[in-house]
Amino acid sequence: MYGRLITPEIEELIAARDFSTIREVILEFEPVELADLVSDLREENRVVVFRLLPKDVAAETFSYCERDTQQELLHDMAREEVGALLNDMSPDDRTQLFEDLPGNVVSELINSLNPEERSIALALLNWPEDSVGRLMTPDYVIIKKHWTVQQALDHIRNYGKHSETLNYLYVTEHGTLIDDIHIREILLSQADVLISDIMDEKVESLLATDDQETAVKAFRRLDRFALPVVDIDKKLLGIITLDDVLDIAEEQATEEMQRFGAVEALDDPYIDVPIIELIRKRATWLVVLFLGGFLTATAMSAFEATIEGAVILALFLPLIISSGGNSGSQAATLIVRALALGEVSLSDWWRIMRREIGVGFVLGLLLGVLGFARIMIGETIQGHYNPLVTPVVAVVISISLIGIVMAGTIAGSMLPLLMKRLGFDPAASSAPFVATFSDVTGIVIYFTIATLLLRGILL
Amino acid sequence: MYGRLITPEIEELIAARDFSTIREVILEFEPVELADLVSDLREENRVVVFRLLPKDVAAETFSYCERDTQQELLHDMAREEVGALLNDMSPDDRTQLFEDLPGNVVSELINSLNPEERSIALALLNWPEDSVGRLMTPDYVIIKKHWTVQQALDHIRNYGKHSETLNYLYVTEHGTLIDDIHIREILLSQADVLISDIMDEKVESLLATDDQETAVKAFRRLDRFALPVVDIDKKLLGIITLDDVLDIAEEQATEEMQRFGAVEALDDPYIDVPIIELIRKRATWLVVLFLGGFLTATAMSAFEATIEGAVILALFLPLIISSGGNSGSQAATLIVRALALGEVSLSDWWRIMRREIGVGFVLGLLLGVLGFARIMIGETIQGHYNPLVTPVVAVVISISLIGIVMAGTIAGSMLPLLMKRLGFDPAASSAPFVATFSDVTGIVIYFTIATLLLRGILL
Repeated sequence: MYGRLITPEIEELIAARDFSTIREVILEFEPVELADLVSDLREENRVVVFRLLPKDVAAETFSYCERDTQQELLHDMAREEVGALLNDMSPDDRTQLFEDLPGNVVSELINSLNPEERSIALALLNWPEDSVGRLMTPDYVIIKKHWTVQQALDHIRNYGKHSETLNYLYVTEHGTLIDDIHIREILLSQADVLISDIMDEKVESLLATDDQETAVKAFRRLDRFALPVVDIDKKLLGIITLDDVLDIAEEQATEEMQRFGAVEALDDPYIDVPIIELIRKRATWLVVLFLGGFLTATAMSAFEATIEGAVILALFLPLIISSGGNSGSQAATLIVRALALGEVSLSDWWRIMRREIGVGFVLGLLLGVLGFARIMIGETIQGHYNPLVTPVVAVVISISLIGIVMAGTIAGSMLPLLMKRLGFDPAASSAPFVATFSDVTGIVIYFTIATLLLRGILL
Repeated sequence: MYGRLITPEIEELIAARDFSTIREVILEFEPVELADLVSDLREENRVVVFRLLPKDVAAETFSYCERDTQQELLHDMAREEVGALLNDMSPDDRTQLFEDLPGNVVSELINSLNPEERSIALALLNWPEDSVGRLMTPDYVIIKKHWTVQQALDHIRNYGKHSETLNYLYVTEHGTLIDDIHIREILLSQADVLISDIMDEKVESLLATDDQETAVKAFRRLDRFALPVVDIDKKLLGIITLDDVLDIAEEQATEEMQRFGAVEALDDPYIDVPIIELIRKRATWLVVLFLGGFLTATAMSAFEATIEGAVILALFLPLIISSGGNSGSQAATLIVRALALGEVSLSDWWRIMRREIGVGFVLGLLLGVLGFARIMIGETIQGHYNPLVTPVVAVVISISLIGIVMAGTIAGSMLPLLMKRLGFDPAASSAPFVATFSDVTGIVIYFTIATLLLRGILL
């Protein structure tokens, strides 16, 4: 937002090669604002601004840039500039950047790091993709239990500069994590108190091999800003901080919603995804649903005689089957979200089923009554009312609606649970998937009831 | 999770009135775990456990409990216990609790507070609902610019105990906020450095009258753990912390998804919402969509002669119109989410439209080709192939699919933007809404093409 306002000025200053004024202007901004500003500049000017930033500000600004901007910058910078920048980035941000780059580019970039940062980068990249290990940073402060609060404060002052967070200090013994101490405890204690006196020996930690979803859940449950990461022997390996977990959580929410809309998860913001990619991500599900949809034609053809005998039934078909799809989407939405938030679990299936049968019946009845009234009145107004046919058709539609809406709510609520049971993402039982499923059941229910009730009247 | 494991033991100990053992056991747990544990106990036992907790632990545990459990506990406690508990809660958590209670209960509870907490509670409740003011806490640490780092540390040690966070310290002059200082700066500076030397006089703040969505966006943009809240004159009123904002963000994501599934936002977790409420929240949209769906019957009746002449067209109707609904849901999902994340804005509408026309054409062509092949092969295998009719029907379906899928993607992408333009939530253009809209256009497109191409053949 700051970017767009001063972008023209910066571009002008660059054209005028007035670098000292630029430096003055940009140092007024925070890294997060600079990232905005840089991304609004023309590509050839971005590197110029980066070169004017102090090293640590440059690295932080770079972390806030969008992936695309980052990759363009890396491409435009000289080799030694790239090395310096990556050396100054925090290891967790750097790992996340590497994950999105092709393997050969990553190897080259890792070679540009200094030996110390290179071994950190390699250690982090050795953990499986989507594991907590990839999110860790090895920058944290360790204190010892026999120290006083004053010693801890002195230690922080001398060695805390590169720590990703000073919110928590970690107490280790021979490398094993034995406690985490909130900086608050240190700040509120007298200088001569021993660390062992404020320890509670209760520490929540994550395993480096845990998947990142576990980390999101742990942060949500524990309300922490940082959590330590250990190996199976409780050795402290690193910490992960809330900001990285928030990014992961937001990505997960987006993927969940996209999958629920029957789109494969996009890797980039919508507007940046190339059209061909956008097509590919949508084509798969659309084709699957389309081929599945041929079942509706198969179901319909079983009732061809009924339709030929009573074309009026076909007129109400889209209305009726879409009511099943709509009520199914509603149920699926509620259950998918409740599963994602951990509000319901698989073992609740019977409780959910009972609720949805009740809800489906009432909603179906409501639409049934409305449908009956609407058809009786509509046909009368249009002068199509036929005392032998119209009431029966209206009854067929009402009863079908009850059945179809119930089928929709049951399918919509149970399919996400079934998906989860089978090890898939519940959101894969998307609204369109539930709707297509409801279409087929809807056709069978509607025409079966019609065939039974209209026999001898229209058929 | 801890709760379920030891719940039976606690229940037994309560029955045996062995309160000292209970106290020992429960003090092993963190407040967040205690909240889990308490909610798993039988209602009459919950208060017993609460009475055994130290006052501050009780207040923190209470904050972590679900709303229902909180309300039951308040109901079961003696009046003075309630007062003590509420006095010890942090003001922001207390305000959020009050927001969900009926007005008369709130007045009674506020009267149970001590005078100091009462005036804080009243001040917070005076801000409009959903405003930043309601989320503030007045518990923060103020420092002065002429102090040294050591003076600041001493001040924190003496007065920081009740501060909601010690991550940021606020520098004020006559009540006006002039800077925020990260505790990191204090911890890393030498003891004799002046606060004014580490000040950068850059401070991001929120207005108490801003709505909570603004707060969520500011936290997302600035990557902060806490932000100060000021009035229009820059006077510091309070701070809001990331944990409260996260709760709001999660609520918003849930509401967005529910609205997108054509359900009015639920006030409580799915499984806790009474069935009657669940029906009410779903009935509104279902009825609106149902009544809107009658337009499909109207559209169909315009083509009654076409359907009577060529019942085969009706067989493929559900398949064809649902393809429009599915591609529309996909487009709407992507745009609603991109709007929520701020990836696209209204001014991008033409760029989005162009992309979606391209995507829609390719996807429609794909389904068209598949549909053509499937019908030609299917009718041949079933022995229904008619050299005069089948190829023409297949062509009608293919061309219709291109038109319908394009109509679906355009409607799905533009409706959320239109909603936003009109001041509604973009998620209100839900998947079922887009699908119903596509049904009507789909019917018109399909039968219009059919009437034109089949004239003289079947009609």
